[in-house]
Amino acid sequence: MREVAVVGIGSTPTGELWDQGLRDLAADAARAALQDAGLETVDALYVANAFGASISTQSHLAPLIADYAGLRGIEAIGIEAADASGGAALRTGYLAVASGLVETVMVLGVEKSTDMIGAARVRARAVSLDSDDEALHGATLSALAALLMRRYMYEYELELSAFEGFSINAHANGAKFAGAMYRNILKPGSFARAPMIADPVSLFDGAPDADGAAAVILTSHARAADLVPQPVRLVGSGAATDSLALAERDDPLWLGAIERSTAAALAMAGITRDQIDLFELHDSFTIMAALALEAAGFAERGEGWKLATDASIGLTGDLPIATFGGLKSRGNPVGATGLYQAVEAVMQLRGTAGANQVAQAQIALIQSVGGVGSSAFTHVLAL
Amino acid sequence: MREVAVVGIGSTPTGELWDQGLRDLAADAARAALQDAGLETVDALYVANAFGASISTQSHLAPLIADYAGLRGIEAIGIEAADASGGAALRTGYLAVASGLVETVMVLGVEKSTDMIGAARVRARAVSLDSDDEALHGATLSALAALLMRRYMYEYELELSAFEGFSINAHANGAKFAGAMYRNILKPGSFARAPMIADPVSLFDGAPDADGAAAVILTSHARAADLVPQPVRLVGSGAATDSLALAERDDPLWLGAIERSTAAALAMAGITRDQIDLFELHDSFTIMAALALEAAGFAERGEGWKLATDASIGLTGDLPIATFGGLKSRGNPVGATGLYQAVEAVMQLRGTAGANQVAQAQIALIQSVGGVGSSAFTHVLAL
Repeated sequence: MREVAVVGIGSTPTGELWDQGLRDLAADAARAALQDAGLETVDALYVANAFGASISTQSHLAPLIADYAGLRGIEAIGIEAADASGGAALRTGYLAVASGLVETVMVLGVEKSTDMIGAARVRARAVSLDSDDEALHGATLSALAALLMRRYMYEYELELSAFEGFSINAHANGAKFAGAMYRNILKPGSFARAPMIADPVSLFDGAPDADGAAAVILTSHARAADLVPQPVRLVGSGAATDSLALAERDDPLWLGAIERSTAAALAMAGITRDQIDLFELHDSFTIMAALALEAAGFAERGEGWKLATDASIGLTGDLPIATFGGLKSRGNPVGATGLYQAVEAVMQLRGTAGANQVAQAQIALIQSVGGVGSSAFTHVLAL
Repeated sequence: MREVAVVGIGSTPTGELWDQGLRDLAADAARAALQDAGLETVDALYVANAFGASISTQSHLAPLIADYAGLRGIEAIGIEAADASGGAALRTGYLAVASGLVETVMVLGVEKSTDMIGAARVRARAVSLDSDDEALHGATLSALAALLMRRYMYEYELELSAFEGFSINAHANGAKFAGAMYRNILKPGSFARAPMIADPVSLFDGAPDADGAAAVILTSHARAADLVPQPVRLVGSGAATDSLALAERDDPLWLGAIERSTAAALAMAGITRDQIDLFELHDSFTIMAALALEAAGFAERGEGWKLATDASIGLTGDLPIATFGGLKSRGNPVGATGLYQAVEAVMQLRGTAGANQVAQAQIALIQSVGGVGSSAFTHVLAL
C-alpha cells in the first residue's frame, strides 16, 4: 500500500449562491485545487454529492463536472453517503491512490442545497433518511436530532443552555473567516431566545443548508514531495455504518459508526487522541457534536457537552473544533461538507489558516457523518 | 498492488418486481453472494444505484442495505454513474481490495426502475442527462439514442433492419435463461412491425427498464484460493468519461470513453482482443451495441452493425455478446446492470451458464456504460 498525500486544495465560499449552478461551483473549486497543486490535470475525479437528483434534477455529475473543470475524458465517479458523501469520496480517493493503480485523484464535493425552499426542500432532503420507517411518516433530519437531544437532556438532566457553547464557538471562529456563511457572533443565552425548528433544536442550534464546492488533490507521498514544498500526509482512514433508521438502534445515544471509524483511523495512523491538534467534526446539530465527542473517545459518556462549556474547543483550547466555523457558521453544503473539512485541516497543517490558525498544528482529525450517525468516515492528516 | 478475484456471486431475477422494495431485492442478492462465497460477512459494501433518489425516494442506500443484508456496521458507500453505476462500483471495489487496505468487498447494484410509470418515470430518469442542455428541453435517453441511430443510418446508408440482429440475438439467449425479463423470441422483420418509442428506436430496440439486484464479492487472489475451488480473477480495469451532453461532442458517432476504458483494461490485463471469449456490452439500444463494438475495437468504424447480421455475436460465434439476454432481454435494472454483467461473466468462466454457456470460456470482457457514452467502465475477468 502506497502512502498518500494532499497536494492541492480549493473551495468556494459557502452560502445561498443562486447565481451559480452545480457545475459552476464545482469547476471553481476544481480549478483552485489544480492551481494550488501546480497541476494541469489529474487521472481521476471522485465527486461527492447528496441531493443532485432530488434538489438539482442532476445526477451523473462526475462526467459533467470533469468536463466543466477542463478534465473531459478522465475517470470520474459519483460517491454518495448523504451528508457524509465528502468523507466517503475522500476514502475512495485514498484507496485509489493507495492501490498504486491511480496516480493522482481529485476528490471534489459539491451541493446546491438552497435551490429549493420550504416544504419542497424538506421533502427533497428527506430522501436520505429511511423512506419506509422515517421519511414516509414525516420525519426530517432536524426532527430526529431533536429526539436525540431531548433524550440526552432527559438522561443527563440538562437544560437547553448546556449545548449553546458549541454554536458560540462555531460562530466565534466563523466570524474571523471571510468564506463563512453566517459570521455573526452568538452570545450566551442565545438558545433561550432562538426560534425553534424542531423543539429543542433551534435556529441557532442546527447548521444552515448551504451551496458550495470544495476539492482536494491526492497523490502518492513519493510524488507529492516533488510537487509542493509542504505535502500533508493522509495517514489514517476509517469507515463504518449503523442502521439508517434511528429507531432501529438499541442505544440511540451511542453513535457506534463514529466510535468504530475513529478507532480504525487512529489505529492506522498509529496515534493517540492526545496527539491530535484539532478535530473537524460533523456539527450538523449541537447534539451531534456532543455525541461525536463521546463516541470518538474525547469525552466520557454523557459529558461531551461539557467540552463546550469552557475554552476546551476554542482555537487555543485542548481540542479545537469547527476552526473555520464548522457546519454551523461556515455553512453545511451537504455532500461537500467533508471536503471543506479536509481543505480546512490542510490549511491548519500548512499554517495558512490566518486568523483561524491553531498554533503549531501537526495532526488533524476530520470526521464526516451521514444522517444521525448512519455513516461515518474519519481521516487523520499529518505533516 | 494486490491481485483481485471474485469469490461470490448472487442476483435476483429481473422484471417488474412490485412486491419487493429496494432493500428486499438488495438483501436477496447479498445473501446469495455470501452463500456462494461461503462467507458470513465482508469488510465493505459498495452499492451501485442510479435512481434511488428520483424514483424510490431513497438515497443513502449503502448503510440501509448493509443493515438489511445482515451486515450492519460495516463500511458502506454509494456509487453513482447513471446506468454505468454497476461498473463504477466494481472498479471502486477492485481498487479497495487492490490497495491492501480492505480485505473483502461486496459490490452490489440495485434498482427499482418500475415504481414509477409513464411521464413521471421519464422525468425521474432524465436526471442523469445534462439538466441544462438536455433534460430541460425535453430530451430523454431514448431520444438521444434515436438521434445517434438516425445519424448512423444516414452516414452509412442503412435501413432499420440492419440493427435488429442485436435484439434477435439478445432474445434468443434470454429465452434460454429463466431469470430473464422478456423471454420471447424475436424474428427477422420484427423492427418493421414494432411500435416506435422515439423514431427510429422502437419497442424491440431499446432495453426495458427493470427492477433487480446483483452482487459480487471480491477479495485478494491469495485469499480467494482458500475460499472457493474456482476463483475468477479480475485482471483488467479501465474507466473513462466523455461530455455528459451528447451535443458537446465533435464526433457523436465515436464513443471515446468506451475506446479509452477498453484500451486501459486490455493493457492492464495484457491481452489482445482475439483472446476474448465473450463480451458483455451495454446494449441499452441497438445503436449503442453497434457503436460499442466499433469504439472497443471489434469492428471498423461504420461496421459494428454487421456483426449482428450473421452468427458472430451468437453463443457459438467469434464474439458472443448478451449471453444471458443482455440489457434487451434479461432487462435493464439500471444501476445494477453492470453487476449483472459481472455475475454472468463469472458464470460463463466457471462453466455454470447452463443453456447459455459459451464453450470453454476463459476470458470475458464486460463493459458498463452511462448515458450515451458519458461514462464507461470496462473490466476483464479470467480464469
